[in-house]
Amino acid sequence: MAKPSGSNGDDQSATDMETQKALVDIDSCQNEIDALNEKASEEILLVEQKYNKLRKPFFEKRNEIIMRIPNFWVTAFVNHPQIQLDESEEDCLTHLKKLEVEEFEDIKSGYKINFHFEENPFLKNEVISKEFHLGLSDPLSSSTPINWKEGQDLTKKNGNAKGRKRPHEMGGFFSWFLNNDDPCSDEIAEVIKDDIWPNPLQYYLMELDGGEDEDAEEDIVIMEEQEEDEEANDEEELIEDEDVGEGDEEAYASEEEAEKSGG
Amino acid sequence: MAKPSGSNGDDQSATDMETQKALVDIDSCQNEIDALNEKASEEILLVEQKYNKLRKPFFEKRNEIIMRIPNFWVTAFVNHPQIQLDESEEDCLTHLKKLEVEEFEDIKSGYKINFHFEENPFLKNEVISKEFHLGLSDPLSSSTPINWKEGQDLTKKNGNAKGRKRPHEMGGFFSWFLNNDDPCSDEIAEVIKDDIWPNPLQYYLMELDGGEDEDAEEDIVIMEEQEEDEEANDEEELIEDEDVGEGDEEAYASEEEAEKSGG
Repeated sequence: MAKPSGSNGDDQSATDMETQKALVDIDSCQNEIDALNEKASEEILLVEQKYNKLRKPFFEKRNEIIMRIPNFWVTAFVNHPQIQLDESEEDCLTHLKKLEVEEFEDIKSGYKINFHFEENPFLKNEVISKEFHLGLSDPLSSSTPINWKEGQDLTKKNGNAKGRKRPHEMGGFFSWFLNNDDPCSDEIAEVIKDDIWPNPLQYYLMELDGGEDEDAEEDIVIMEEQEEDEEANDEEELIEDEDVGEGDEEAYASEEEAEKSGG
Repeated sequence: MAKPSGSNGDDQSATDMETQKALVDIDSCQNEIDALNEKASEEILLVEQKYNKLRKPFFEKRNEIIMRIPNFWVTAFVNHPQIQLDESEEDCLTHLKKLEVEEFEDIKSGYKINFHFEENPFLKNEVISKEFHLGLSDPLSSSTPINWKEGQDLTKKNGNAKGRKRPHEMGGFFSWFLNNDDPCSDEIAEVIKDDIWPNPLQYYLMELDGGEDEDAEEDIVIMEEQEEDEEANDEEELIEDEDVGEGDEEAYASEEEAEKSGG
């Protein structure tokens, strides 16, 4: 390995002294850089908190509208490539009327996903939640215990049900929900929080677009907007780091088209 | 798949109309959320730009100090687990006196890495730069052409030199430097920008700590500070998302210890 020049006697000591002094100076300079990094993080956190508050009423309004669409959430889930549901889970989730993702005030510390169910043959719970506390020295997640109706425990039915899309990968929706072994790498929770929740419409529309469900497809027209405007494209690149709002342009359903075909 | 209830005649039409209307409403709500996301991104960009400016003088000061330490950069590079140098490259990089990473004003649009060399037997260039323009619709990177001294082209010597650590993975430092085939997934450039540049001291010290270089090690004492204070730990967790400043606490060389052992 490369070594400092002057490798014997007093010269060596002098070199070492100088190096040692320089290392200390670098370290103290680095501390100032680190302090700035910390301040930057704090300011960014404040911005994120501010916009979380500003977004909240829109997410609530969106949830109100979503409740007017039968099977919205189960459709979005089924269409998401990383979510696997077996048939009985899919039946159960047709009764999922509301989904909520709440980030904790200190965004980095964790979040909570609430699943609100209408009266259904499977669950007694009206709401089940899974929450993640990731800011702790020992991160943890916890889930509401599920009160299954008699003989309806879907975690016990998994072996019998015919899998729709590789159920072994996810191990079943409710098995995922109840599993809190590894809170820091819960991919399904992250998919719900970072992908489905920021823009569920794109996943709801995916199937109608893809055309498995012919009846529904006939009467719903999806218009794909081509963004040819270069300025608009540049703006999009500017904000590409935000992993929310993706795919929105493509999933746009125009009001005029809707009235034409639906009426 | 789950379907909307009421699947024939006028009921069906009415349901579809209602669903269609709701989809349009969700889309318009989603547009408002997206606009907020965009605003949040812009504000975060402003914070990042501000702190980039504030950090700059400290990075410059750090570079001045680093130049007092022989072989600082080559040592940091050799010690980094993702950087592979063969022996002649290592010899060449002992003449690398200054490294700079400049993020462009619009941080997301790209960055430039400058390598400053002292007079040496390999390169005629004093500075070679590799820069990344990632905000373009067609991202690109470019490198300063290297003026090798007679018979010293290290990209042609690679086959002969004995590899120090799996040189096939990186394909040689200068081959990496000159290769601009895939600017969006240049792992080495990202290692330099996001890992080495934010805190090079930890990599410089790694080897001295590990003890390959006994002469130097004898006279340099690295003190590992144990952060037992719980409050300090909590603060660190708060800013863990910033991928800069890591390992700084561990790489601390105390001034008193240095004087004691060096004098």
